[in-house]
Amino acid sequence: LCAPWSQPVRIRQTAGVRVHDLRTPCLIVDAATLDHNLTAMAAALPGRRLRPHVKAHKCTALARRQAALGHRGFTCATVREMEGLAAAGLGDDLLLANEVVDPERLATAAALEARGARVTVAVDSDATIEAAAAAGIREVLIDVDVGLPRCGCAPGEAGRLADRARKLGLEVRGVMGYEGLATIVPDPDERRPVVEEAMSRLAAAHEAVGGDVVSAGSTVTYAMNDTATEVQAGSYALMDTTFAAFEDLPFRLALSLWTTVISVNPKGYAVCDGGLKSLGMDHGNPTIEGRRVLVVSDEHITFSWGGDHGPAPAVGDRVRVLPAHVDPTVAYHERLWVVDGEEVVDCWPVDLRGW
Amino acid sequence: LCAPWSQPVRIRQTAGVRVHDLRTPCLIVDAATLDHNLTAMAAALPGRRLRPHVKAHKCTALARRQAALGHRGFTCATVREMEGLAAAGLGDDLLLANEVVDPERLATAAALEARGARVTVAVDSDATIEAAAAAGIREVLIDVDVGLPRCGCAPGEAGRLADRARKLGLEVRGVMGYEGLATIVPDPDERRPVVEEAMSRLAAAHEAVGGDVVSAGSTVTYAMNDTATEVQAGSYALMDTTFAAFEDLPFRLALSLWTTVISVNPKGYAVCDGGLKSLGMDHGNPTIEGRRVLVVSDEHITFSWGGDHGPAPAVGDRVRVLPAHVDPTVAYHERLWVVDGEEVVDCWPVDLRGW
Repeated sequence: LCAPWSQPVRIRQTAGVRVHDLRTPCLIVDAATLDHNLTAMAAALPGRRLRPHVKAHKCTALARRQAALGHRGFTCATVREMEGLAAAGLGDDLLLANEVVDPERLATAAALEARGARVTVAVDSDATIEAAAAAGIREVLIDVDVGLPRCGCAPGEAGRLADRARKLGLEVRGVMGYEGLATIVPDPDERRPVVEEAMSRLAAAHEAVGGDVVSAGSTVTYAMNDTATEVQAGSYALMDTTFAAFEDLPFRLALSLWTTVISVNPKGYAVCDGGLKSLGMDHGNPTIEGRRVLVVSDEHITFSWGGDHGPAPAVGDRVRVLPAHVDPTVAYHERLWVVDGEEVVDCWPVDLRGW
Repeated sequence: LCAPWSQPVRIRQTAGVRVHDLRTPCLIVDAATLDHNLTAMAAALPGRRLRPHVKAHKCTALARRQAALGHRGFTCATVREMEGLAAAGLGDDLLLANEVVDPERLATAAALEARGARVTVAVDSDATIEAAAAAGIREVLIDVDVGLPRCGCAPGEAGRLADRARKLGLEVRGVMGYEGLATIVPDPDERRPVVEEAMSRLAAAHEAVGGDVVSAGSTVTYAMNDTATEVQAGSYALMDTTFAAFEDLPFRLALSLWTTVISVNPKGYAVCDGGLKSLGMDHGNPTIEGRRVLVVSDEHITFSWGGDHGPAPAVGDRVRVLPAHVDPTVAYHERLWVVDGEEVVDCWPVDLRGW
């Protein structure tokens, strides 16, 4: 069938390029802020305590930074992400934290082992266990429902599924469970019991399953999950306005959408050239500091000026837009421009997109 | 700087492929429904009365169908869309219905004329007129604010801007204005006066500007805009659940996201493998007929079953998901699979993406 688009994006040198030279809309990553986020997390969860989730950035260049800080295991949402990481030499320990029943995709994942990768997949049912075994997958985690209405078996089923997997010759490394309900609780004191409740279910399942892996977590629970042996955090590297509002987190906004003002209306609003095709919108409108975002359409963000919303902009001005949700924003883009102040220092392909 | 990804997506033959063979998530287009939509619109607005907006599908193969039905002029939102159409031999009359001040992009658009294309760009300010003239653009439309808070000059400014453009050597073909406020009014009797109010402003501007083009409109106003000489409709070809709810429109849902059930929870919900990275979410959740969509996350749609929401699905079942907003949905995908019943009859690259 259709082959994926040809990788990689060709990169030309960025020497001498200033952020104002970049054509808009485009994503820019502040190098110093990214470094702050990566090192803050590596200090809190060194080495294998963190299994960075690449779905948030879909970028092997960024994953390489995470690996260089000691995190050699990665979490993936798609087989394509696993393929890309393995091809980039980052396949030491790849977890597909997602159920897959497509035999062709599972066989692709299994075949990565011949190229030196270690491959583990999440399973939560007889059907997914059978599909994994049939495709030649060797290692699995039992994915447990810890309260979020998504994938995962009932905690009481986990032991039976582990037995079933072992009977089919699979190595069961342990359990995983995503305490996603905690990610909508900004107050850490309220968030902590939500995490504990979810993790008590995961711990019970782990007891029945065995294995040495308890994989869980996210950017907003990394510091309060005492059950997980490894935390699957992704957003912490680039961040977005939704998670930046969680005041207990040390991670800062490293990602922004760089846009140009294309129209200024004397009624008090202006338009820049980002929009629905450059921003994930499920968490609502993006933010422009000092302005108010009024409407977002395909290739336009209308924002107000005047009064509390600042002086009139001019056509051609650049505007920095802060995305509300990092993952579906990055997935629209071919590349990330890495900037140090006003200087463009690198261009990273978003090379793990698609399926 | 970074070059765009290498085009085109390579297509393998689809002979003998059934829709159940497709790897998910993927977009499928029902060929018969698409034909119905295209021919219904061509009957209502033949030839140059329609200037199809390619931003809704970003696909030259689909544009070629529209051209074959007599619509030889196209509306574009980006210069990349213009480049792609011109390269595909569809450059007879390309309108960039969007303000651009980037000199490099405008020069790229102007250079398409040397390859046989006709290029017109929207301008709404002295700055955009000067940028167009400096880049070698020859023809413009004056973009007029007809009520939607987005681009467009005040109607009273249009004549002055046209004069300014002509002084700089630009040919002013006429005006354009988007009656976007009408696109949120489902009742046609309430929608019509919104269109009339907007178009009275555009007509006044046209009187001051001159030229033979009055470009306006959209899928939901195509039958009630008596002012426009040409209608810029895009969504009508593939449609989405938002516009399908407008009962006066003859266009039907041709686009769906094809997904696979990966997890079934005895509590009464199941999960399929579409999500935030395969659906534009600004118009809210997608629809699954006979089910209720509960939550959408990056690579998951959780939907309920039981009671009014149907019998339990099984892992591996295919689920057809109806997107709420066509444009930002298609922009996530590399290709459209065209199906005739259960048979896959074509694979069209979404080759006009990015910037």
